[in-house]
Amino acid sequence: MNSMILHGDICYSADQNTLITRLDSYLVCVDGICKGIYDKIPEEHAQLPLHDHGKKLIIPGLIDLHTHAPQYAFRGLGMDRELLEWLSTYAFPEEAKYSDLAYADRAYTIFTEGMKRSATTRVVVFGTMHREATKLLMDKLDRTGIVSYVGKVNMDRNAPNTLREASAEASIKDTERFIKETSNKYRNTQPIITPRFIPSCTDELMEGLGRLAAQYRIPVQSHLSENPGEIAWVRELCPWAENYGAAYERFGLFGKPQKTVMAHCVYSDDREIAMMKENGVFIAHCPASNMNVASGIAPIRRYLSEGLRVGLGSDLAGGQTESLFTAMVEALQVSRLYWRLVDSTATPLNVAEVFYMTTKGGGEFFGKVGSFEDGYECDAVVIDDSLLPTPRPLTVQERLERAIYLGGDVKALSAKYCRGKQIELSA
Amino acid sequence: MNSMILHGDICYSADQNTLITRLDSYLVCVDGICKGIYDKIPEEHAQLPLHDHGKKLIIPGLIDLHTHAPQYAFRGLGMDRELLEWLSTYAFPEEAKYSDLAYADRAYTIFTEGMKRSATTRVVVFGTMHREATKLLMDKLDRTGIVSYVGKVNMDRNAPNTLREASAEASIKDTERFIKETSNKYRNTQPIITPRFIPSCTDELMEGLGRLAAQYRIPVQSHLSENPGEIAWVRELCPWAENYGAAYERFGLFGKPQKTVMAHCVYSDDREIAMMKENGVFIAHCPASNMNVASGIAPIRRYLSEGLRVGLGSDLAGGQTESLFTAMVEALQVSRLYWRLVDSTATPLNVAEVFYMTTKGGGEFFGKVGSFEDGYECDAVVIDDSLLPTPRPLTVQERLERAIYLGGDVKALSAKYCRGKQIELSA
Repeated sequence: MNSMILHGDICYSADQNTLITRLDSYLVCVDGICKGIYDKIPEEHAQLPLHDHGKKLIIPGLIDLHTHAPQYAFRGLGMDRELLEWLSTYAFPEEAKYSDLAYADRAYTIFTEGMKRSATTRVVVFGTMHREATKLLMDKLDRTGIVSYVGKVNMDRNAPNTLREASAEASIKDTERFIKETSNKYRNTQPIITPRFIPSCTDELMEGLGRLAAQYRIPVQSHLSENPGEIAWVRELCPWAENYGAAYERFGLFGKPQKTVMAHCVYSDDREIAMMKENGVFIAHCPASNMNVASGIAPIRRYLSEGLRVGLGSDLAGGQTESLFTAMVEALQVSRLYWRLVDSTATPLNVAEVFYMTTKGGGEFFGKVGSFEDGYECDAVVIDDSLLPTPRPLTVQERLERAIYLGGDVKALSAKYCRGKQIELSA
Repeated sequence: MNSMILHGDICYSADQNTLITRLDSYLVCVDGICKGIYDKIPEEHAQLPLHDHGKKLIIPGLIDLHTHAPQYAFRGLGMDRELLEWLSTYAFPEEAKYSDLAYADRAYTIFTEGMKRSATTRVVVFGTMHREATKLLMDKLDRTGIVSYVGKVNMDRNAPNTLREASAEASIKDTERFIKETSNKYRNTQPIITPRFIPSCTDELMEGLGRLAAQYRIPVQSHLSENPGEIAWVRELCPWAENYGAAYERFGLFGKPQKTVMAHCVYSDDREIAMMKENGVFIAHCPASNMNVASGIAPIRRYLSEGLRVGLGSDLAGGQTESLFTAMVEALQVSRLYWRLVDSTATPLNVAEVFYMTTKGGGEFFGKVGSFEDGYECDAVVIDDSLLPTPRPLTVQERLERAIYLGGDVKALSAKYCRGKQIELSA
C-alpha cells in the first residue's frame, strides 16, 4: 500500500552543494522506496495511484535530529536564562510532571499533533526519565506515521529529587526493560539510549548504558559542548577525560560501536572535532536554542569543510518551534553572524547546504533517507507556494529558497508522506 | 463610526519595563481613541458596539518603523551578499521595474495584502524613486486602513542608470510635487522625505530635501551605519562629516527640525549616538536584515539604557518577512548573541522590552500610538492563542511571550483594528 506516484515540481539534494530540480515530473515510489523521477509516468508503473500536486513544490521530508517532546508544553516560554539555570528553572520542573501519566497523555497528544502538522518526517526525541510516559509517547508517535527514535532519559546525579533515578543500577535496569519493551513493538519508532548529558550521569550509569547500547545494538543521543559553564562542569566531573566527547567515548557512547547523535557542539575543540569525525558522530545543529539560551554559534562551516556529519535539530523547547524551516533560516542567519563577529574565514552557509543538512545530511542517521534518489525511502512534503504570491517568475530553486525563508507560513504545507504513506495534516 | 468596546484578555506596555495585563476586561474606544479599560462595561458606554473576543489575547497593533514595499516581491530570496553587493544584485534591479505602473500595480497589491493580513497597524515605508508608482502604493495602503508614512526614494548618484534621477534639481522638484500631491489627499497615509542613504544622494540633493522637510514639515527616513563597507564609503564621500549621522544633520535631516527614523544603527559611534539622543532620532532596529545581509548586531541594550528611541523594523526584503512577531523573536535572539559574542556587559533584552519597542516605543513616531492607555489611538490585534495548545495553565504575560515566540503561526491572528476601525484580515 506504500506505492504511488507523486506529480509536481520536485527538488532535492544530491550532495551538500548540488540541488536537483525537476519541473513537472513524476516521482515513482514502490513499497515506500523511490524508484526514479520521470517526465512522464513509465508504462510499467501506470497502475500505481497518482497523487497529482500540480505545480506545487515537492521536497524530501525534513529531518529533526534533536528535540525534547516533554518540553513542547513550554515552547516559546522562559528564554531568559543560560543553559544550566534554564534547566533547573524551566526544563526539570516540567519534566517532573511526566510521572503523571494523565498529564503525559495530554501533553504528548499535543506534541504529536504538532509534529504531524509540521514538515518533519523523522525525528530523534528525548522523552523524560519515566519509562511508562516515554512508552506512551512512542505509542502516539508511532500512530502519526512519522518515523522516530525515542529515548527514556537517564539521570542519576545533579538532578532534582523528582527526576533523579534511585541508583545507577536502577536506571540501567529500567532502561534495559524499556529497550526490551519497545524494540520490536512498533512500525515507526525505535528506542535510543539517552543519557541526558555527562553532568547528570555517574560513570557507573554511563558504563551500563554503553553495555546496553552494544548488547542491544541501540543508537545513542546526548548533548555535547553546548555552553561554557557546562563544559567547565564536565571538566570537574570527569578530570580523566581529555574533553567532553572523550567522557562519552570512554563508555562506548560516542559513535562507536553504535551510531550516535550529539546536539549542539558549539565549543568543540580540535581534538573533539577529530574524534567526532573518526567516530562518525552526527552533529545536531540547533541554532534557535543556541541563541535562546545564549550559548553561542556552532562552527558549522568548519564541520562541513572537515567532512563531519551535520543535521539540524529543533531542540524544543530551547528552540521555540518544531518548524525546521525556521531552523534552516536560523542556521543561515547565525552563520552570517559567525562570519561577521567570530571568524571572517568561515564562509556563511548557503541555502543548498542548509537544505542538505535538513534532508539528506540528517537523514543518514535513519539510513537511506532524505533524498529522492533511487533506493531512498520515500519521505516527501508538498508545499503550495502559490500561497506566497510574487509578481516575479521564479525558478524551482528560488521557490525552494523562498519556501524555506517564509516557512513559518505553515498554511502552505499541503501534503506529507513518510515511507510512501500519506500522513494526514490535521487541523 | 470608530467607537466600540473590545472584550478579551488585554495586554500592553506602560513603559519599557512594565507590562499591564487585564484579564476578562473591556477596552472602550471612542472616536478611535482609548478611553479606559474596565472590568464591566461602564453604563455611559453601554450603547457602543461590543466586539467580544472571549478569552482571546488583545494587544496593541504592531509598529513597523522600516520597510521597503517594492522589495516584497523578492522576500525570502537572495540573502547571499553583503549590503552594497546585495543592493546592486537584488534590490536595484527589482526597484527599476517600478517605472512600469502595471508591474507596480501587481506588486503593490501583493504587498498591501500582506500588510493587511499581518499584525502590523502602522508602517514607515520606502517606495522607489518613481513618483507615480509610489502614489499608487499610497492609494493601496490608504485603502487597507493601516496607517503609514510612504516615501518616494531619492537617488542622484551611485545608482544604476535606471534608478538615478536626472539631477539633484530634478529629484528635488519631483519630490516637492510628490509632497504636494499626497500631503492632504489621504486619510491613512502621509508622505515622508526619503533619501535612500548618503552614498546615493549628492550634497545638493540633500540640501534640497532638508529645505522641503522644513518647509512642508514632513518627517524623514533613511539608513544609518548599517555595514562597515557602507560607513567607509560615506567617510570618503563626506570627508567633512564627523560621522555618518552628521552627514544627515548638516542638511537638517537628522531629527531636527523634523522627526526622523534611521534604520539599523549597527555601528554608530559614541558621538553619533549622542547626536541621535540629542535630536530625538528614532532607531529602527532590523535584526533579520542585519543577519541576512551579514551586517552584524546593533547594540540595542546601550540605546535603551541611554534613553534613545528604538522601534523595530521588518526591513523587507533584507528581512525575509513582514511579521513583527518574527522581528521580536530575532531581536531577543541577537541580543543574546551580542551578550555572548560581543559585549558581556550588554544584558540581553527581555520580552517586555522588545514588546515595548514594537508597540509604544515605535508608536511614538506616529503620536500617541502603541498603547491602550487613555488618549492613545486605538490600534489593536486579537490573537486566538488557544490554537497553540499546551497542557499548562498560562498567565496573560506568558501567553503574550508565547504568542510572540510562536507568532509565525499567523492562523492565530483573529482580528485587527486601526484607529478604532476593524480591518478585514483577508484570506
